[in-house]
Amino acid sequence: MTTPRLKNSTTDAIGKIRALLGERLSTAAAVREQHGKDQTWNEGASPDAVAFVRDTGEVAAIVTICAEHQVPVIPFGTGTSLEGHFTAPYGGISIDVSGMNAILEVNAEDLDCRVEAGVTRKALNTALRDQGLFFPIDPGADASLGGMAATRASGTNAVRYGTMKDNVLGLTVVMPNGEVIRTGTRARKSSAGYDLTRLMVGSEGTLGVITEVQLKLQGIPESIAAGVCAFPSVEDCCRTTIETIQMGIPVARIELVDAEHIKAINAYSKLALAVTPTLFVEFHGTEAWTKEQSERFGEIAASHGGGPFDWATREEDRTRLWQARHDAFWATKNIKAGKAEAFATDVCVPISRLAECVEETRRDLEANDIYGPMIGHVGDGNFHVVLFADVNDAGEVKRVKAAYDRMINRALAMGGTCTGEHGIGAGKRAYLAREHGPALAVMQAIKRALDPLNIMNPGKNAAI
Amino acid sequence: MTTPRLKNSTTDAIGKIRALLGERLSTAAAVREQHGKDQTWNEGASPDAVAFVRDTGEVAAIVTICAEHQVPVIPFGTGTSLEGHFTAPYGGISIDVSGMNAILEVNAEDLDCRVEAGVTRKALNTALRDQGLFFPIDPGADASLGGMAATRASGTNAVRYGTMKDNVLGLTVVMPNGEVIRTGTRARKSSAGYDLTRLMVGSEGTLGVITEVQLKLQGIPESIAAGVCAFPSVEDCCRTTIETIQMGIPVARIELVDAEHIKAINAYSKLALAVTPTLFVEFHGTEAWTKEQSERFGEIAASHGGGPFDWATREEDRTRLWQARHDAFWATKNIKAGKAEAFATDVCVPISRLAECVEETRRDLEANDIYGPMIGHVGDGNFHVVLFADVNDAGEVKRVKAAYDRMINRALAMGGTCTGEHGIGAGKRAYLAREHGPALAVMQAIKRALDPLNIMNPGKNAAI
Repeated sequence: MTTPRLKNSTTDAIGKIRALLGERLSTAAAVREQHGKDQTWNEGASPDAVAFVRDTGEVAAIVTICAEHQVPVIPFGTGTSLEGHFTAPYGGISIDVSGMNAILEVNAEDLDCRVEAGVTRKALNTALRDQGLFFPIDPGADASLGGMAATRASGTNAVRYGTMKDNVLGLTVVMPNGEVIRTGTRARKSSAGYDLTRLMVGSEGTLGVITEVQLKLQGIPESIAAGVCAFPSVEDCCRTTIETIQMGIPVARIELVDAEHIKAINAYSKLALAVTPTLFVEFHGTEAWTKEQSERFGEIAASHGGGPFDWATREEDRTRLWQARHDAFWATKNIKAGKAEAFATDVCVPISRLAECVEETRRDLEANDIYGPMIGHVGDGNFHVVLFADVNDAGEVKRVKAAYDRMINRALAMGGTCTGEHGIGAGKRAYLAREHGPALAVMQAIKRALDPLNIMNPGKNAAI
Repeated sequence: MTTPRLKNSTTDAIGKIRALLGERLSTAAAVREQHGKDQTWNEGASPDAVAFVRDTGEVAAIVTICAEHQVPVIPFGTGTSLEGHFTAPYGGISIDVSGMNAILEVNAEDLDCRVEAGVTRKALNTALRDQGLFFPIDPGADASLGGMAATRASGTNAVRYGTMKDNVLGLTVVMPNGEVIRTGTRARKSSAGYDLTRLMVGSEGTLGVITEVQLKLQGIPESIAAGVCAFPSVEDCCRTTIETIQMGIPVARIELVDAEHIKAINAYSKLALAVTPTLFVEFHGTEAWTKEQSERFGEIAASHGGGPFDWATREEDRTRLWQARHDAFWATKNIKAGKAEAFATDVCVPISRLAECVEETRRDLEANDIYGPMIGHVGDGNFHVVLFADVNDAGEVKRVKAAYDRMINRALAMGGTCTGEHGIGAGKRAYLAREHGPALAVMQAIKRALDPLNIMNPGKNAAI
């Protein structure tokens, strides 16, 4: 199934959308380009126009026009995707929801809120702080909550608070025929009907455009304890993590940073951490309880050669630590500045296989002379590699891509997934069939049923 | 769309299935009846035959035969559904998976396991105990894990551990065309493709037959503190719960039992609880941490007139307490023994509206002279009413059904759902459209795409 296109369809659709949006529809080359290329090695492709929308009604009107003219629709949030989710290989209309940035309701007693899709996670947390609430999902970038829902994002807090699939209560979605549906309710749980919320979460704009998101919130913990702990090996980091989780210690964050990454972080964030595999950890709770968690974790760590533990008790030290962790990608880019492009990717495996997967990947990269620092949401078995390649060196690019392919196959062979949190987008489509086998045909049947014209983000995820 | 039936189709299908299963295909009236009627007021309807299957391959073969002859397929686990999920209004073949009761793997380091669909939750927990692990989801009945996945079940632990949607990592499913798919992986999280796992969880056998379930497990807590606390009113119970959750106290169970239910429990389980709205609570953690949680909870409860707190420190006292809670349904049935039938139902609302919803429902029942004790998973905003009616008194049945209808509309008007955990089945289909509006058509489009012949559990959930 290729995307059907009618003669003059795009011009006609753009004319009609311009009549609705006026200046808020742009066909400027720079705007189109910015909406067609991410920061990865995934090929860019500009949409024919970018619609800066203000509300669900406008999105519905645009999708209706696009359906009539069989023109592709590509949702766009903040453009921080790492897998080419918003490129437009078949052209079409990019729907930029960044102007839909209203926090519609905050229900403190129910620990939930409703936001427009363009609200970013940091904007939401700033707005919530005074009420003692926060939203825990934190991909590195300050992504939009609509985009985070669409890509099933997670981050450092997922080990305790889950991913977007666990934190979205419901959605407003413009379907491929222009109809607006609302999934979920404000109830914390429901057994009423098919779980359309979670079908849409992670569908990457291929089943509809998310315009509003109902989210679970958390109370800001009374006490937060964070710190770093150096280990002799990745294996020791992983064993410590497994025991921590088995003991039921509700660690809020537990991040593995490999020695290469520590070097980069030290240089970029002006820290002086020991250059060895390190766990960044954080505990949430009451003062007594975080103290107990920290002590127990310290004992487990020590039994695996970890320590001493370096605690960041003051909020500013904690912030600096986690900022350094969040800046890890930029830190590695900085190391290779001008000499190579950085390509971030991720896989996720059962935690019992994590050390083996990381170590085999490390050996593979070394054997092939590839610079590829690793960082892991180790509590989830999820790890990231930033692969560097000189894009003008075809041989190096080929070598890096081959190592990347082996890494994914390694994860799949260990019972894992080709992506823990970055998504499929345009970049990992080849791996969907390998991971899901005949289940991919079921995904495609759903796609065809809901979007028979294949106008919603064609060429991404399970969309052909 | 009505279920298509071909001439002689059922006889032909039964013949072919008998050739496969021999004695394990039963057409005995008693067996068919037992597989066609639950313990509720939902009308029963017997299947044409019951297939006692041994493995996924047999299920696939049967579904293939049924597809060829356009004969309905109805999955059956333990028959403990409360919404007529397994009745056979269009006849067909009941696939009884209770013989598929093998625990296929337990991965202690990864806190996961894989079981055949017929394994019950109690059987799994018995098998896990020696490894210090448990599976937390506990609907009242000792249901099969396949059935629990199919109905998106939950129970008293959901406030801390989530529902089946949060605890199923993946499934093996026989699709309506007989194809076998595996959804999910052993990774804790994934962003790869559409979330078929959660589409199947809660689809109530209308999209396929679940034959294997991969589950998340938990470590058995070091320390468990449980107790009961009496309150002046339901409102006070709810306010205490809201504050407990807002404070971030990770209560493992928090159950509201109304005065009527306490009366019934006292009689049935030989307890001497004060006859007033009561919270049953439980905390999991280390000894120091459960102590701190209990104390903090005690302070919140006291500020709302609750207490004194009656702690069950010994394991046998705790077991007795929770057994009494789990037996609440039987306790109320006992009160009205022989005089009326009991019909259990549930709704779920935002927790801030729970007191109001419970109180309005209470007044409505009193005004209409209906005996209907209530019990609530109050941390989730989910509550159950056991409605009693003399089925030979048409006027009373009508009055009870009208009150039931008002209760559901009340929950929906408060932003809630028509069922928190019992499901739609045959009984609540009328409410799906009311709750979901145009989203129901999306569910039906998915159903048509995956099961164009409408053979999978027709007449249930979103299946026409």
